[in-house]
Amino acid sequence: MAINPDAVGTTGTPVESSWTSKDSLLYAVGIGAGTTDLAFTTENSMNIAQRAYPTQAVVLGDASGAFANIGTFNPAMLVHGEQAITLHRELPVQGSVVTTGEVTAVWDKGKGAVVEVTSRSVAPDGEPMFDKVMSVFIRGEGGFGGERGPSGSRSMPHEGSTPDLEVTLTTREDQALTYRLSGDRNPLHSDPSFAALAGFDRPILHGLCTYGFTGRALLQGLCEGDPARFRSMEGRFSSPVFPGESLTVRMWRDGAGAARFSTHGGDGRVVLDAGRVTFDPA
Amino acid sequence: MAINPDAVGTTGTPVESSWTSKDSLLYAVGIGAGTTDLAFTTENSMNIAQRAYPTQAVVLGDASGAFANIGTFNPAMLVHGEQAITLHRELPVQGSVVTTGEVTAVWDKGKGAVVEVTSRSVAPDGEPMFDKVMSVFIRGEGGFGGERGPSGSRSMPHEGSTPDLEVTLTTREDQALTYRLSGDRNPLHSDPSFAALAGFDRPILHGLCTYGFTGRALLQGLCEGDPARFRSMEGRFSSPVFPGESLTVRMWRDGAGAARFSTHGGDGRVVLDAGRVTFDPA
Repeated sequence: MAINPDAVGTTGTPVESSWTSKDSLLYAVGIGAGTTDLAFTTENSMNIAQRAYPTQAVVLGDASGAFANIGTFNPAMLVHGEQAITLHRELPVQGSVVTTGEVTAVWDKGKGAVVEVTSRSVAPDGEPMFDKVMSVFIRGEGGFGGERGPSGSRSMPHEGSTPDLEVTLTTREDQALTYRLSGDRNPLHSDPSFAALAGFDRPILHGLCTYGFTGRALLQGLCEGDPARFRSMEGRFSSPVFPGESLTVRMWRDGAGAARFSTHGGDGRVVLDAGRVTFDPA
Repeated sequence: MAINPDAVGTTGTPVESSWTSKDSLLYAVGIGAGTTDLAFTTENSMNIAQRAYPTQAVVLGDASGAFANIGTFNPAMLVHGEQAITLHRELPVQGSVVTTGEVTAVWDKGKGAVVEVTSRSVAPDGEPMFDKVMSVFIRGEGGFGGERGPSGSRSMPHEGSTPDLEVTLTTREDQALTYRLSGDRNPLHSDPSFAALAGFDRPILHGLCTYGFTGRALLQGLCEGDPARFRSMEGRFSSPVFPGESLTVRMWRDGAGAARFSTHGGDGRVVLDAGRVTFDPA
């Protein structure tokens, strides 16, 4: 097992991938959408056109080619660090993209390595549909003599001040069992025995499921539920979430069309921080 | 619109259909299986092989060819009457079958017609995998001068006596939104506007979702959760169920390897009656 720090700057082969209306419905119920979200959970309700959640971009667009350039490592040692998405247009409920990923950073954190992959997914008409930046922390892969990179603690200027608004959504105890059908079958999120080996009392929710719940709260709080107004979202995973927890998203407006946010678990702890979202202020 | 009473005895063209492990997982969460049902809701838990629920047979095997022989009618006028399944072997979590359906009855009930379709689904090795009998009531299609057929009220010898066991499972308010992804997209189960047109205050649960919950309760109560022991199940839909209701399945043993059952909604009313199940008493 060794990752390759020289992978920075390399790209993967462009990969075409597609999704269906059913995939979008399944993603929606996976992030807890329900009977009050019929635009996202049904395709045939009267006078309601189906829409896709902006955060569905995280499960679309295959950037695994760039990841392969990093070399081999134990996937059980990988935890999600940060995730950013930028939507250049509203995600269609079904469609296809060609995705090219690039390794944009490999940092040596001593106990592990941080790897960042940036990808662009282009629509069939040749225009970009969405971009993503994902960073992961891989335990045990540090100590290769590389640079540490930027500090992990970003400024959180709004922390402690009263949020302009907050939205609370509740995950279900079996949330991960539906969410995983959108693609990430890591048993850390479903198998108690596997979770125990990883040091958890029980399976933890997918970070990207928390991300999806957070996106629903932002869409509701800032965009009047209209995904066409959603532009970008980024945040850093700071604590595991257990299925069944409520998630409260606190939002601080940051001028027109921008806000900072943090997501909090049932006990108030921060689970997703350094959040920034941009949107059409309409 | 007119159905054809002479369709009795006609068969549809045999149709091949297949399903995947993911389809089985999605069906399982659709009928409310969760973190205590990992054999049905996960494919990669340590020392737990994936299994399929016996009632998944209701969404497998395409008998639509036989239905087409009945003629044209308004699908919004159709309600599910009875459903029987017989498993000749345990359903694999992924597989394929060739299904041949036959119209086995068309009855004239005056206000509507009852149509019964019987189908057999055969595995790739040529052996039967499962049989199904489905009867539907089609409002407005009676009065064609046919026979009424058997009375709708079957004997319920155990009604009123104390059940040998009962199992209660709870549907979720958004249950139908996941269940429908296994195939039945009738908006009666998801769109409040459509449900209102059909005379309901809100969308009703798929009868076959109630059937699936009932099957889970029977499997748990009578077969120690082992789908290999489940042989057959039949029952008649007697009242709509609203998503969010609890479902209590009362079971009366009827000799070794057989039981009668009825399923009750949150207020105690019967929602599925004349239930019979057979199983390996092991």
